[in-house]
Amino acid sequence: MDIASFTGFICGVILIVSAIVLGGDVHNFVNVPGMMIVVGGTLSATFLTFRLKDVTSSFKAAWFVFTEEKNDPNDSLAIMIKLCEISRRQGLAKLESVKTSEKFLKKACMLIADGSNEEIIRNTLRTEIDSMKLRHFIVQDVFRKMGLYAPAFGMLGTLIGLVQMLSKLQDPNLIGPSMAVALLTTFYGSFLSTMIFLPIAGKLKAITILQVINLEIMFEGAVSILDNNNPIIVYDKLSSFIPERNRRPLDKIIKGQE
Amino acid sequence: MDIASFTGFICGVILIVSAIVLGGDVHNFVNVPGMMIVVGGTLSATFLTFRLKDVTSSFKAAWFVFTEEKNDPNDSLAIMIKLCEISRRQGLAKLESVKTSEKFLKKACMLIADGSNEEIIRNTLRTEIDSMKLRHFIVQDVFRKMGLYAPAFGMLGTLIGLVQMLSKLQDPNLIGPSMAVALLTTFYGSFLSTMIFLPIAGKLKAITILQVINLEIMFEGAVSILDNNNPIIVYDKLSSFIPERNRRPLDKIIKGQE
Amino acid sequence: MDIASFTGFICGVILIVSAIVLGGDVHNFVNVPGMMIVVGGTLSATFLTFRLKDVTSSFKAAWFVFTEEKNDPNDSLAIMIKLCEISRRQGLAKLESVKTSEKFLKKACMLIADGSNEEIIRNTLRTEIDSMKLRHFIVQDVFRKMGLYAPAFGMLGTLIGLVQMLSKLQDPNLIGPSMAVALLTTFYGSFLSTMIFLPIAGKLKAITILQVINLEIMFEGAVSILDNNNPIIVYDKLSSFIPERNRRPLDKIIKGQE
Amino acid sequence: MDIASFTGFICGVILIVSAIVLGGDVHNFVNVPGMMIVVGGTLSATFLTFRLKDVTSSFKAAWFVFTEEKNDPNDSLAIMIKLCEISRRQGLAKLESVKTSEKFLKKACMLIADGSNEEIIRNTLRTEIDSMKLRHFIVQDVFRKMGLYAPAFGMLGTLIGLVQMLSKLQDPNLIGPSMAVALLTTFYGSFLSTMIFLPIAGKLKAITILQVINLEIMFEGAVSILDNNNPIIVYDKLSSFIPERNRRPLDKIIKGQE
Amino acid sequence: MDIASFTGFICGVILIVSAIVLGGDVHNFVNVPGMMIVVGGTLSATFLTFRLKDVTSSFKAAWFVFTEEKNDPNDSLAIMIKLCEISRRQGLAKLESVKTSEKFLKKACMLIADGSNEEIIRNTLRTEIDSMKLRHFIVQDVFRKMGLYAPAFGMLGTLIGLVQMLSKLQDPNLIGPSMAVALLTTFYGSFLSTMIFLPIAGKLKAITILQVINLEIMFEGAVSILDNNNPIIVYDKLSSFIPERNRRPLDKIIKGQE
Repeated sequence: MDIASFTGFICGVILIVSAIVLGGDVHNFVNVPGMMIVVGGTLSATFLTFRLKDVTSSFKAAWFVFTEEKNDPNDSLAIMIKLCEISRRQGLAKLESVKTSEKFLKKACMLIADGSNEEIIRNTLRTEIDSMKLRHFIVQDVFRKMGLYAPAFGMLGTLIGLVQMLSKLQDPNLIGPSMAVALLTTFYGSFLSTMIFLPIAGKLKAITILQVINLEIMFEGAVSILDNNNPIIVYDKLSSFIPERNRRPLDKIIKGQE
Repeated sequence: MDIASFTGFICGVILIVSAIVLGGDVHNFVNVPGMMIVVGGTLSATFLTFRLKDVTSSFKAAWFVFTEEKNDPNDSLAIMIKLCEISRRQGLAKLESVKTSEKFLKKACMLIADGSNEEIIRNTLRTEIDSMKLRHFIVQDVFRKMGLYAPAFGMLGTLIGLVQMLSKLQDPNLIGPSMAVALLTTFYGSFLSTMIFLPIAGKLKAITILQVINLEIMFEGAVSILDNNNPIIVYDKLSSFIPERNRRPLDKIIKGQE
Repeated sequence: MDIASFTGFICGVILIVSAIVLGGDVHNFVNVPGMMIVVGGTLSATFLTFRLKDVTSSFKAAWFVFTEEKNDPNDSLAIMIKLCEISRRQGLAKLESVKTSEKFLKKACMLIADGSNEEIIRNTLRTEIDSMKLRHFIVQDVFRKMGLYAPAFGMLGTLIGLVQMLSKLQDPNLIGPSMAVALLTTFYGSFLSTMIFLPIAGKLKAITILQVINLEIMFEGAVSILDNNNPIIVYDKLSSFIPERNRRPLDKIIKGQE
Repeated sequence: MDIASFTGFICGVILIVSAIVLGGDVHNFVNVPGMMIVVGGTLSATFLTFRLKDVTSSFKAAWFVFTEEKNDPNDSLAIMIKLCEISRRQGLAKLESVKTSEKFLKKACMLIADGSNEEIIRNTLRTEIDSMKLRHFIVQDVFRKMGLYAPAFGMLGTLIGLVQMLSKLQDPNLIGPSMAVALLTTFYGSFLSTMIFLPIAGKLKAITILQVINLEIMFEGAVSILDNNNPIIVYDKLSSFIPERNRRPLDKIIKGQE
Repeated sequence: MDIASFTGFICGVILIVSAIVLGGDVHNFVNVPGMMIVVGGTLSATFLTFRLKDVTSSFKAAWFVFTEEKNDPNDSLAIMIKLCEISRRQGLAKLESVKTSEKFLKKACMLIADGSNEEIIRNTLRTEIDSMKLRHFIVQDVFRKMGLYAPAFGMLGTLIGLVQMLSKLQDPNLIGPSMAVALLTTFYGSFLSTMIFLPIAGKLKAITILQVINLEIMFEGAVSILDNNNPIIVYDKLSSFIPERNRRPLDKIIKGQE
């Protein structure tokens, strides 16, 4: 569970809701047709914009925002140094039997163990990273677009409300409440966009950046194994991806593997 | 038929229309001069911005949004592996007789069968991909620009309405309805932009991304054929373009070809 | 004459003007000081932003928007194939006597006929293309900036009108008409930007894209001539710049040249 | 202490506060629930957007805005020339004993002293620079996003206030003050964004640019040491990163080292 | 004196001022506290955003907007051709005694005369150009950011005025004038941004583009001298940076040098 994200979200919602509750009648803020225009309109424009597959995989990915990520680049670093030692001591073919849940690493090991050409290995792994980036970009884009559509449908709803109100402007006492109802869709749209869609898009981007760093460490590590570099050089090379103060020292990595 | 896109669009329109109908008199939302300003203005600015050819091919492309795309990259992958086997068993010249509706692939086969220089083949196919991207970008741009012009003409219409209303501000009872009519063009412009033009532009982009992946698989496959790689290496290389969980396994591809 | 652009522009203006005329008194929409603020302000900010030379060449370029462009890439393709045959049959030196109004092509022929180093020819022609792109970008930028300045000066004019109106708020009957006058500058600014400046900027960009394709065909063609490729290979290479369905077939090109 | 930043900030706040104080009752500008919506909402969206680690390191980095930076590129230049002389006179191995608080330089010296392959040194140091840029970009992005969220929550607060006010529109005398309270959150959001978040994001970017220049000087210097260039060439090469008029002359650098 | 820029600026200011004067009481547009909020706030946010050095060098650079630039690329072209002839006739060492106020050219000549390695010369000069671009970008960015901050502080001032007005809404006759005063800061902010800051940022960019072209001509010229190209080839290569119709013919350049 990613406590910070979850707490952030809950606190924000509580703040807005309490501001509404303290101001009096909550039912002034509930307008079912308005909610349908904003939520339904946003969803319908999103399904029109993206392929069905992309939308569903985005909603799945959004779930990850509230799941604690455990992509510590130090772990990837430690694994690559271990693989480097294995390949030096037991030969490249030994890499075939490596067990890992990370499919990118598995593929890299298979390619190396198969004795493929270095250029093919580089191109294949680079394509994997680029394809992953592209897929993640689309997933983020779904939420970014929803963050754009929600306020737009909020404004459409407000325009509908205003036109309806202005068309039958007889009882001046009704102007206020009608106006309030019209503004509600703008409120819904802004709330969904600022509090949910845009932050989720941002968090997905942050997770992607972290995953790309992990894949880059594995990529550079695989290339180092092919070049038969010794573990100290590999550590120097790969640890550059990790900020100085978070970097796990080499002796600790080696100790952790014994 | 792309059900998701179509359903999304229909639901969105129904939501907005029902919100209008439920609010009372529908005829308050019909204003022919306003519609002409927004639709006509947007079209006229679009024809001024782009070349006639680009606008017409964009309208044709928009039709594809509601057509089920069947560009499964796994199919391109399967074809390339088949071609790879053919070329290994029967020689590169055999590729000339390959029958395919995909013109990019046809051209690639012709070039290989003609025994052209590898660099020329690479450059030619790369130029094909880049030209296709550029054409698709223009097609998307037409709808993006329409998504910008529509609200701008909506605002122009509202400004015209406001100036006309304010110039003859005598009967205060008429302010409301006049204001309502003035706001209608803003409503039309926002509706067209958010519900139609921007989603179509987005969908065209999504389709382009998919087509580029297909072409990249064919491009890399053609290069592999030239390098005389075996089908397993080709599979490893080309399958990197497809996400792990959608990837068709090699044995299934080979079985499907027998 | 580019009929589509011209018709588009005329129709758009007629639509807006008829909306104004049908609404009643046209003179409500004429406000000379307001026009001066918007047009004069936009011009003055533009002259401050760009160099005098860039502004004047932009205005000249804008004229091209209404001139039928006849940059059919198929023509460039045909010329390059002809030159390729000439150079193969009669030697590279023969290219010196080629007559063409296209200065880029003339320069390419001169460089080849002079027997210059291939790298120098490539660099020189690439620099020509890049310089052309940069100049065209500036020309487009002039209109894009005018499209930004016009609404900004429209808003400045409206602010001036509002401050003047609000400062002497005595006769409530005058509020409406004063407000109408104040809004007029916003109308002028939006109209100029949406209907004229931004579409012209877009059209100039579309023309640039077409010209760059023509130059790229000539560039690649010149390189092919240097490499002494045969016309069929040159056709395969250069035709990639042109979409499949518009591509003129090779036999038609050769027939056209006899 | 970076006097300019600090003075700039204090003066800006004093200006705004004095404008409020001179206008009369200060308590009209204090609204605790409104502040909570804007500040709390912004923080909660920020924690949802970024990883906890990134937010806390951004807040630490913001402190640097008010700390005098002493990253004079001339100092890096002087150090590299000194190292260059040491390595020429005493051998590359001597670089291992160099003492410096700059970890990038320390790593560069270690790699050179270890006699690593030139390509590995280049890649490793380049990765260090790129990773640093990425981390700094995220830190700036936190403040840029806060600069976006603050006005958005300001608008949300104003919408809540407007809906509440309009729902119970009975006593017209209360409209003014209620409206004033509703506008306060927009004021808070704009103030935080314009006066604090966006300038801090900008300053962090300016500091990053300076640090990157320092690292680039060290990177190019390290490569020059590997190439065994003499100090005059190294000075010519590295001084290009520093503007002519701020450049410390070579003789002054050498004198300062004796 | 750059007449066009100066005239543009003066005309724009006269237009706005005369619109104000013709509308009646000028003193309605003078509000010292409002000016202080906008000007002071913009300056304070700018000093917080950038380093003191960058702000002062930007203000100095802004002066250049009104100074006639005389960076004719034809002059750089002529100089490089002359240097090319000198180096061919009298040897590379002769370039050391070249006298020029352009420091980039001086450095290029020194490096060539010193007989440095070609790669070092290329890297050093490329770094000079890139550093110059970066410095110029920061200078432009100062004005772009001021163009953003000015309207933001204008809005802050208007919000302060509105809150103060709405809090004490007793005498309805005062609403108009108070509102007018509140709107003034928005007017100041928009005026400063549209009429001064953004155009200056644009002009600085235009000047940078021209200077980069000059430096590129010198860079390519220096490389040609190293390659010992003859003046005709150098002219063909370097003249590509200059548009066809402004290009000074080679014979005129040579004649001008005798």
